[in-house]
Amino acid sequence: MIFKDAIGIIAQLTAPLRRFGASSLSRMLVLAVGLSAMTAYTVPTLPNAAAVWLGACLWCCLGYFAVDSALRARTAARAGHARDHFLSLSFLVDVVSVIAVPIAFLYGATAPNAWLFATFWILKLAQNSPGFAQLGRVFVLEAKPLASVLALFVMVLFLSSAAMFVIERAVQPRAFSSMPQALWWAVVTLTTTGYGDKVPITELGHLVGGVVMIFGIVSFGLSTGILATGFAAETRRRNFIQTWDLVSKVPFFQSLEPSSITEITHMLRRLEVPERVAIIRRGKVGDCMYFIAAGEVQVDIKPTPVRLGAGAFFGELALLGDSVRSANVTTTLPSTLLILDLADFRTLTANHPDLKRAIDAEAQRRVTENQQMRERQRLGDAASA
Amino acid sequence: MIFKDAIGIIAQLTAPLRRFGASSLSRMLVLAVGLSAMTAYTVPTLPNAAAVWLGACLWCCLGYFAVDSALRARTAARAGHARDHFLSLSFLVDVVSVIAVPIAFLYGATAPNAWLFATFWILKLAQNSPGFAQLGRVFVLEAKPLASVLALFVMVLFLSSAAMFVIERAVQPRAFSSMPQALWWAVVTLTTTGYGDKVPITELGHLVGGVVMIFGIVSFGLSTGILATGFAAETRRRNFIQTWDLVSKVPFFQSLEPSSITEITHMLRRLEVPERVAIIRRGKVGDCMYFIAAGEVQVDIKPTPVRLGAGAFFGELALLGDSVRSANVTTTLPSTLLILDLADFRTLTANHPDLKRAIDAEAQRRVTENQQMRERQRLGDAASA
Amino acid sequence: MIFKDAIGIIAQLTAPLRRFGASSLSRMLVLAVGLSAMTAYTVPTLPNAAAVWLGACLWCCLGYFAVDSALRARTAARAGHARDHFLSLSFLVDVVSVIAVPIAFLYGATAPNAWLFATFWILKLAQNSPGFAQLGRVFVLEAKPLASVLALFVMVLFLSSAAMFVIERAVQPRAFSSMPQALWWAVVTLTTTGYGDKVPITELGHLVGGVVMIFGIVSFGLSTGILATGFAAETRRRNFIQTWDLVSKVPFFQSLEPSSITEITHMLRRLEVPERVAIIRRGKVGDCMYFIAAGEVQVDIKPTPVRLGAGAFFGELALLGDSVRSANVTTTLPSTLLILDLADFRTLTANHPDLKRAIDAEAQRRVTENQQMRERQRLGDAASA
Amino acid sequence: MIFKDAIGIIAQLTAPLRRFGASSLSRMLVLAVGLSAMTAYTVPTLPNAAAVWLGACLWCCLGYFAVDSALRARTAARAGHARDHFLSLSFLVDVVSVIAVPIAFLYGATAPNAWLFATFWILKLAQNSPGFAQLGRVFVLEAKPLASVLALFVMVLFLSSAAMFVIERAVQPRAFSSMPQALWWAVVTLTTTGYGDKVPITELGHLVGGVVMIFGIVSFGLSTGILATGFAAETRRRNFIQTWDLVSKVPFFQSLEPSSITEITHMLRRLEVPERVAIIRRGKVGDCMYFIAAGEVQVDIKPTPVRLGAGAFFGELALLGDSVRSANVTTTLPSTLLILDLADFRTLTANHPDLKRAIDAEAQRRVTENQQMRERQRLGDAASA
Repeated sequence: MIFKDAIGIIAQLTAPLRRFGASSLSRMLVLAVGLSAMTAYTVPTLPNAAAVWLGACLWCCLGYFAVDSALRARTAARAGHARDHFLSLSFLVDVVSVIAVPIAFLYGATAPNAWLFATFWILKLAQNSPGFAQLGRVFVLEAKPLASVLALFVMVLFLSSAAMFVIERAVQPRAFSSMPQALWWAVVTLTTTGYGDKVPITELGHLVGGVVMIFGIVSFGLSTGILATGFAAETRRRNFIQTWDLVSKVPFFQSLEPSSITEITHMLRRLEVPERVAIIRRGKVGDCMYFIAAGEVQVDIKPTPVRLGAGAFFGELALLGDSVRSANVTTTLPSTLLILDLADFRTLTANHPDLKRAIDAEAQRRVTENQQMRERQRLGDAASA
Repeated sequence: MIFKDAIGIIAQLTAPLRRFGASSLSRMLVLAVGLSAMTAYTVPTLPNAAAVWLGACLWCCLGYFAVDSALRARTAARAGHARDHFLSLSFLVDVVSVIAVPIAFLYGATAPNAWLFATFWILKLAQNSPGFAQLGRVFVLEAKPLASVLALFVMVLFLSSAAMFVIERAVQPRAFSSMPQALWWAVVTLTTTGYGDKVPITELGHLVGGVVMIFGIVSFGLSTGILATGFAAETRRRNFIQTWDLVSKVPFFQSLEPSSITEITHMLRRLEVPERVAIIRRGKVGDCMYFIAAGEVQVDIKPTPVRLGAGAFFGELALLGDSVRSANVTTTLPSTLLILDLADFRTLTANHPDLKRAIDAEAQRRVTENQQMRERQRLGDAASA
Repeated sequence: MIFKDAIGIIAQLTAPLRRFGASSLSRMLVLAVGLSAMTAYTVPTLPNAAAVWLGACLWCCLGYFAVDSALRARTAARAGHARDHFLSLSFLVDVVSVIAVPIAFLYGATAPNAWLFATFWILKLAQNSPGFAQLGRVFVLEAKPLASVLALFVMVLFLSSAAMFVIERAVQPRAFSSMPQALWWAVVTLTTTGYGDKVPITELGHLVGGVVMIFGIVSFGLSTGILATGFAAETRRRNFIQTWDLVSKVPFFQSLEPSSITEITHMLRRLEVPERVAIIRRGKVGDCMYFIAAGEVQVDIKPTPVRLGAGAFFGELALLGDSVRSANVTTTLPSTLLILDLADFRTLTANHPDLKRAIDAEAQRRVTENQQMRERQRLGDAASA
Repeated sequence: MIFKDAIGIIAQLTAPLRRFGASSLSRMLVLAVGLSAMTAYTVPTLPNAAAVWLGACLWCCLGYFAVDSALRARTAARAGHARDHFLSLSFLVDVVSVIAVPIAFLYGATAPNAWLFATFWILKLAQNSPGFAQLGRVFVLEAKPLASVLALFVMVLFLSSAAMFVIERAVQPRAFSSMPQALWWAVVTLTTTGYGDKVPITELGHLVGGVVMIFGIVSFGLSTGILATGFAAETRRRNFIQTWDLVSKVPFFQSLEPSSITEITHMLRRLEVPERVAIIRRGKVGDCMYFIAAGEVQVDIKPTPVRLGAGAFFGELALLGDSVRSANVTTTLPSTLLILDLADFRTLTANHPDLKRAIDAEAQRRVTENQQMRERQRLGDAASA
């Protein structure tokens, strides 16, 4: 109970700080500082004064992570996800990050050794990262061919190290004294790392070594080819899923047939933008148009800026006529935009003339409205003059 | 005859063990244990006691492989494939694995040397592995461009090593004493392994070495590009062949035209699942639906779980409306499922409205049935109360 | 004012030289000479006479860059882009290239040290290079997955170096004396560079090292796969944009529907050719035809060469019948050509029979005209004989 | 004249040998022997007897190449290509291969030094190799992005080596004594070769080195991505061109519309087969069918084998029903086959029902004919019995 109250008080006191403090940016910053301090702390020639400061810095980072983890647990508990959160990998990382170092101190480790456990903080990089899920899916999709390449790798590893052991042990009894030593040579060579701590010196050893190196290139090539194929498929799939729901929310596309919507979904790219970010700068060359799936942007047209909300589009003028942007556009709210590239715009309007007509009409309406507004202002200015 | 009987008796005695013992999992386990023991056995500083235990362990592994090979041969013989089996590469691997070590002992090799022949056990990784066939096809398909890259590689190898031999032999008469030595330098450099046992020290040698390294990157890039292109083509082809026959067995697709079936075949992914595996967990976000090509699954709906057999589909509700799974689904038999991703589901139903109608109708029917069942149960409960 | 006049005078005096001098070719040449001289200047064993010559050469290069930068600034100012130019990165590179070395001399640096700042000249490679923008776009497009791979890389880096520090520091207290040393080992190993200055020697260290190396291959593969996917998408997009405007200027394509123009745009490749360059050589095998988007070419037909201007096409005869080129074609002006490959030509004319008819008709007209001209000449020759 | 006669006489005398001797296989064999002998000849510890034998062997190889080159020149002259041949790169390689070593002897080089010039023989690998042209086209197509990556590489090379020179020269005055030394370090590191002859030892040097290595991976990735993209495009284009002419020669496809022919061309793969090669083996699983573009095959059906010539197809039975091949098929002449994979066969017949009907009808006709023939033979056997 006291613990819960304490967190509550801290939460209130740090309210102004929290917006920054709880952001992932500041978490990354603390992570960078903490890991640098931990790294520096292991240097044996460190002067005492520096060690004191680094220790203080490390305790601050640990404190930050403790509070941060507690706050996140509270947030999850309030949202009713307490059980899910406590069973998640993310919570395990939080716990290990906070308790590993104190436990090491409790067991009597010296300070530099205890702080070595701060290395676990690096695992926070993997928390809440959608990119890891995507990479993971690529490995799952391509598990079978990757396993085959690994099997091939292991076969070459064993056969070549046995061969090298037999060939070289007579002339280099120290370097190739046993199979584990020969396996070390083989893995260093097959991955083309090549430390040079063990090098064949007989002619036959050179021959076997050369073949192993060339196979190293091939295994590089195979695994890269597999990962590239899987990644391309996964990217295409993920873009579609991310975009699909947004597309159906843009009224402009609702008049289209389902098959056309599918086609468009493959062309659009999603972009998340915070507020007060310039999307388009006047005078730059434009090669895409934007649809607003959520949020709001402001178009800085003279005399009165115009605000466009969800469902609207902008930037189409640069694609229809001259390619130079005619006005600045800035987000006023955190927004989700859908980007349509020039190349896809051409393809789309070529296949769907009605879409082109609609965009043209809207663009025409805007230009006219803009001119009328200026005209009216000019008249107003003249009248008031 | 005695030999055949002995196998028969062993087969009967080990019947309960066999289901596990003959599985590829246990074979891999024995392989790992055997190769580790063999590797440890070559360490010269090994205490005598450990050597005895490792030797025993190795004999056990050899015995396992002998029995396993014999059983497989008997199975093949019973199925009438005796001739094919005895001529196959797989049988050769079996024989070599079993007899190589005893023969080495017969010829008077010391124990560590004799057990070195256990390295051949690693070849068992290649037995019955469909992945190797796939990789092999990629090499066959891309044989010509790969041969060109290899020819380019060999040309650069010879020209650069001759140049380096001429350039460096005056200042490093030991390291670059002959063309074989220079060739070794060239292959170590071209593959970007870079042991550092032979390094050019003249300015001209540095220049030639730099060019060779950059060419090494290019040859990496070329071979990877070729393998990636070939692998993508082969993956697409293999998926199609694996899926085609299954698709034609799902009644749901039989009403479609041949060209649509081809299209669907390119979209579906095959998944082999053992029995009692959870396919869908309630509450998770769903991004695909499943067609049952073979086997059976159980959908845990209250009050009575429903079983779906070959030809049925499930998981479509998460794609039609809310994306959260509403029930657990578990296999009751080893099953072959066809997975349709959300992205492809959208494309498919957009192009084939009748397919969408059929899925909608079936989904609607299930929801209604489910409600009626609950209603009836509620009434039943009320009546019995 | 005096400065401006001086530039003006220099500009007039060097007028004949400028056409060559201001070209990017000569800039690259001066760059190569300057950087080579700077590199040679740092060699400690350099004889005095050579140092004097190299110094003179370096001052000349600096002078060239100064004049070149001034001229470019003047050109920009005249075109009214003064403000844009002075705020551009390109101008910053110009300024740094010119003033870095003199400032170093002012602050009392020795000659070899001062000239080290000439290394900044290499940044001129990035000026006005459209290729860099393309590579930059690939990184922007694929920022998220690349960041994930980098995060994975950093995680493995820290975890493996902490592990290696703990494992190896007891037996190699010098090599693995601190975490920074272990991190250096990890980055050298993860990138498969493998200097060999720090090498694990314990069995456990070998195991961790092997895993790190294999993960190095995987991180190579992932980043390559991501970059390859992004590059393929970006290439397709850029080609389309570059070609689209040109296609709409070729009258031949204007009769086509918008959707067909989109299709053709994807097939065409742009080629910029200076004047007096041979596009087609008689007797070579032809596998593409050309459309002239801008410029002019001369077809060397007997007796009178024919000139073709923007909008015309040539090289189609080799695709229609015999594949051998029947005449030389050379540009007479700097030209922009659109190349249509044989494969795409077949696809295009198969899908658009009217296009094929138009090309056939034009080709037929040319052949006939050609024959008539020869006939007339023959008659003229006969009459004059 | 005498020279010409001499070649004529040699040509006649060696007539039986020539068919083998002039084949590219035997040329490759002589090349391998010659280069091995040359390599061995440079070993300083070679016994005298071996040197004599190797010298003899090398003279034989040189003689072979001289005769081979002269024969090729004569062939070209007879075919009227004399001028083209004498100006070709291939002829230059022939001449250099033959005269380099004798000239070196003339100028008084020792035997091992003179034979070093035999390294030029390796250039024969590039003669008449269509694969090199394909790789070359990839480089031409992707010249711009590759140049950008190279520019980036050179920029990082210079900037990092200047930085490393400044950082490390104080503590390692020998290893980083000048910019050329630092550049050597940079190229060894950027290509991830990592000899380890020059290694940064300061903290700052480690940091710069780490960044350079990571950039090395990126430059690997970029160049591989570019080459992979270019290679995929080039492969697709080349396959189409090679296949197109053959497709139009198969009567079976002539009834199709041009757009369908284009589609089929993209599906077919070309295969050149010498005579007496087994294409299909009875009992194997079949996943493709074959069209004969040129040549002849024999289908071993009982009782009378059937011969199929250009325009016919075979192997379709395995795709229509059971997937096991029912007869051996062997080429009787050097043949050009077009392979249609199962996946593409399905797609094709789905989109072109008439094609499927035609194949079905032909397959049915063959089965019937086959049965009738057997029936007749059975009756004949019965009558003669």
